[in-house]
Parts: sequence; C-alpha cells; structure tokens
Amino acid sequence: MTEPAPPHGYTPRKDSHLKRLRRVEGQVRGLQRMVEEDKYCIDVLTQVSAMTKALQAVALTLLDDHLGHCVVDAAAAGGPDAEVKLKEASDAIARLVRS
Amino acid sequence: MTEPAPPHGYTPRKDSHLKRLRRVEGQVRGLQRMVEEDKYCIDVLTQVSAMTKALQAVALTLLDDHLGHCVVDAAAAGGPDAEVKLKEASDAIARLVRS
Amino acid sequence: MTEPAPPHGYTPRKDSHLKRLRRVEGQVRGLQRMVEEDKYCIDVLTQVSAMTKALQAVALTLLDDHLGHCVVDAAAAGGPDAEVKLKEASDAIARLVRS
Amino acid sequence: MTEPAPPHGYTPRKDSHLKRLRRVEGQVRGLQRMVEEDKYCIDVLTQVSAMTKALQAVALTLLDDHLGHCVVDAAAAGGPDAEVKLKEASDAIARLVRS
Repeated sequence: MTEPAPPHGYTPRKDSHLKRLRRVEGQVRGLQRMVEEDKYCIDVLTQVSAMTKALQAVALTLLDDHLGHCVVDAAAAGGPDAEVKLKEASDAIARLVRS
Repeated sequence: MTEPAPPHGYTPRKDSHLKRLRRVEGQVRGLQRMVEEDKYCIDVLTQVSAMTKALQAVALTLLDDHLGHCVVDAAAAGGPDAEVKLKEASDAIARLVRS
Repeated sequence: MTEPAPPHGYTPRKDSHLKRLRRVEGQVRGLQRMVEEDKYCIDVLTQVSAMTKALQAVALTLLDDHLGHCVVDAAAAGGPDAEVKLKEASDAIARLVRS
Repeated sequence: MTEPAPPHGYTPRKDSHLKRLRRVEGQVRGLQRMVEEDKYCIDVLTQVSAMTKALQAVALTLLDDHLGHCVVDAAAAGGPDAEVKLKEASDAIARLVRS
C-alpha cells in the first residue's frame, strides 16, 4: 500500500501507534480472561486502570502529531482553515480531559 | 466449568462484564483499522475518548459489585478483614480517579 | 461548638479536611493573581493541574471516611439502608471518576 | 494598569478567566463551610465534583487561548520557537488529561 503523500500528521508514527493499540487489545483480552476465571475484582480493576493509562498515552501521542502537523501547517498557511483546525483540536482535548 | 460457590462479587454480572469487554475489544480493533487506513486524527481521538468512557463504565460496575458483595460481607462479618477490604477498595478507587 | 455525636464519618478527620481545603483556597487565589499579572499560560495551567490533584485528594479522603464509617455501619446493621448507602457511594464514585 | 502589548494569549479573555476563578474560590469556601457544619459527605463530594469540573473548564479555556495565540503565532513565524511552544502545550495537555 503506497501512499503518495501522507494524508495525516500521525502517519510518520503510524507503526508506533499500531503497536500501542495492539498492546491495548492484548490488555482487553487479558481482562476478559480474568473475568472468565473469576479473578479477584481488585486485580481486575488494577488492570482496567493500567489499560486506561495506556489508552491515554495513545491519545496524547496522536494529539501531539496532530498539533505538530495538521494544526501547525494550517496555522502557517493562515486563513480560515487554521481556525477550524484549532477548534477541532480544542474540542478533542476537552473530550480527553473529561473522559 | 462448574463453580461450587461464586468466589467473587462480580460473578452474578459476569456475562454482562464480558459482553462490555468484548465491545471494548471491538473498539480497539476499530481504532487499529482507523490508524491503518490513515483516518483523520480527530476522528481517531473521538473513538479513543468513547473507548475510555466504555472502560470506565466497566470499572464502575465491577467496583459496584465489589463494594456490594465483598466489602459489605466483610463489614457485616466485622474483624480485621473488613479493614483490609476497605483499604483495597479505597486504593482501587484512587487509581480509577487518577487514571 | 460541642457535638453530642459526630453525625458523619468525616468528623474525626474534619480538621485535616479543612486544612486541605484552605490550602486549595490558597491555590485558587494564587491562580487569580497569576492571571491578573499576565503570567505565562503554561505556568497557570501547571497550577490548575496541581489544584485539581489537591481537590481529588480531598475527595478521596472524604470518600474513604464515608466508606469506612457510614457505609460499613449501614452494612453491619443490614437492611434497606445498606443498599441506599451503597448506591449513593457508587454514584459519588462515578461522578469523581468522570470529573 | 495599562499594558502596552498584551504579553500572553489569555489577556483578551482575562476578565472571564478571573470571573470563573472567583466562582471557584466561592465553591471552595462553600466546601469549607459544609465540612465545618458536618454536612453529609455525599453532598460534600458532589460539590467537589462540581468544583473539579469548573476548574477543568478554566483550564480548557486557558489552553484554547494559548493554542490560538502563542502556539499559532509561533507556528506562523516558524523556527525553533514553534517546536518549543508545541512541546510545552503537549506537556500541559498531558498533565490535564492525567489530573
């Protein structure tokens, strides 16, 4: 799959994002196994907290790439697109902070 | 796999926990697909926020069951075990609030 | 101000809660001063994060006291009040996790 | 107090930030009163959650202003300062998401 031009800011770190997401998938499968085997709730909860932190780390690196590429490029180009990109980024940050 | 006595508080709602966790697994696979297909970062982030909320919901129902069974039972029985269970629950809540 | 019987679980640690809350008040006044003096936004944000953590710590110790007194006492007494207290505590935990 | 040039991005919305922070101060004083009067812990916790949300709202509007002014201006100017500003903003976002 060749890409003539990387369409989004996270493409350079795509492999690293995918690796992290596969690890998160491993964590959620591990959680299912724990529940199936009636593991102690507190241990299950500890894993849920670890998984939430892993997901936040994915979100923060995606956001980094987005700010550093899409938003900065739009800002450098100026015009109404910069406003739109900023508004989008702010809304995404608000969702992350509140989730 | 027969269980003579359900060992932990979440056993009654085990199926519901497993169903939620499978849905979370579906979400993380969906995220991988989005990153592979270079979907727009903001859309990926929106999905990450949704998945974080789904995970929190799993954690809160697990915790509910734990408080309503293990902790309440230990409290009713009294003795040092009640203290231990409470401390464990408090620590788990602190991890959730901070993650 | 004499109290014939401490009405709620946090009374024993009341002074410690008040001390923490006064420190949080000091933090929010410090933030006002920073904004008034046009301090650098990033430094203001760092202080907001510190204050949020301080508030969470207050919430977690209040919750600890509540679980260890009101909820445990209701559980030991049994009956419908135990259910009510647990539901209340779960809802409060959910609000903390989501905020 | 005249300002020849507003030094930071939040100056235009300074009054609105200060108003919000004064409301947060009112909330923390209200919390102290509740604890002093031995109000029910769950009601105190509800107020702590409301106050945490109010603080997050302050943080998100400060961050908005910062991204929309300092970061965008640095990005438009280009050069190493843009990198520095972005890194700072990312770190501040990470602190908010984790707190």
